[in-house]
Amino acid sequence: MDFKKIDSKVIFRGHIMDVVVDQIEFENGVQAQREVAVHASCAAVVPITPEGKIIMVRQYRYAVEEDTLEIPAGLLEPGEDPMEGAKRELEEEIGQKPLHMEYLFRFYASPGFTTETLDVFLCNEMSPSHQHLDVDEFIDIQEVTPEEAMRMIADGRIKDGKTVAAVSYYVARAKEA
Amino acid sequence: MDFKKIDSKVIFRGHIMDVVVDQIEFENGVQAQREVAVHASCAAVVPITPEGKIIMVRQYRYAVEEDTLEIPAGLLEPGEDPMEGAKRELEEEIGQKPLHMEYLFRFYASPGFTTETLDVFLCNEMSPSHQHLDVDEFIDIQEVTPEEAMRMIADGRIKDGKTVAAVSYYVARAKEA
Repeated sequence: MDFKKIDSKVIFRGHIMDVVVDQIEFENGVQAQREVAVHASCAAVVPITPEGKIIMVRQYRYAVEEDTLEIPAGLLEPGEDPMEGAKRELEEEIGQKPLHMEYLFRFYASPGFTTETLDVFLCNEMSPSHQHLDVDEFIDIQEVTPEEAMRMIADGRIKDGKTVAAVSYYVARAKEA
Repeated sequence: MDFKKIDSKVIFRGHIMDVVVDQIEFENGVQAQREVAVHASCAAVVPITPEGKIIMVRQYRYAVEEDTLEIPAGLLEPGEDPMEGAKRELEEEIGQKPLHMEYLFRFYASPGFTTETLDVFLCNEMSPSHQHLDVDEFIDIQEVTPEEAMRMIADGRIKDGKTVAAVSYYVARAKEA
């Protein structure tokens, strides 16, 4: 159903999100409030070792108050190409220089309230390089087989959304081949 | 690395999220700001028809300014059991009463900035009932084979995060069996 925006306010401008609150009115006269967390675009990469393991990073996530095991990922810089951003994050977080990247898919993290998009890539060819972490970034690296990663999703040891999506997609596609 | 919270402000209290901004200080003296979108818990369900198709709903998502194709899902009511919430949303959105539910996994939508969790269930036994939509909810129903859904993730026709995660997980697990 069509609607018109009758009011829009920027409530907050932050480092990783802005918050916008709009009032809208549908054709039938019903009014509603829409709250949007405007978030930078992100890129993520599934890094596969020569032995077929997935390289993941464990880090503390303030919002959920616990460590999570995730594929390497990060915010894109303004105007940055998603594949370049994914390559940069891969090298920064796990200290491997990507030599070949393949695009997998793009998704919305939670389209009910945030603009955040993630582009997900696959990398199965890397050469050793150096970790470059931000001053407030503390990361441990862990290698997991795809089969173990699926078990870790089922039992809750992996619960980061992009990692659940990317690992499951990678396993589903591998089984199709 | 350990840190302490040195300040915390509630910036916004909304219908679907609150926004909290904290200042923290690490052991090494480095200070940082943490912005958190405090979001209600959600539940989602992968509904499978007797023919093996996945039932999805298409709806306009204001935050991303487009229609998205998603598995049925919604916010839990305060104190609501996730499986009961998933059953309620299934019946409200597609007009089918779930007769058997199976827990799949729980994930964080985007742990870098939001508390939002989703519990995902599988339902492959339903009986006809009635849609009950909110006054500002407008939904079309579509049935898709799992194979077609995987192609739709790859080419961008499906890009809702929970749907990418749930469909890929369902396909990966089915292929293991």
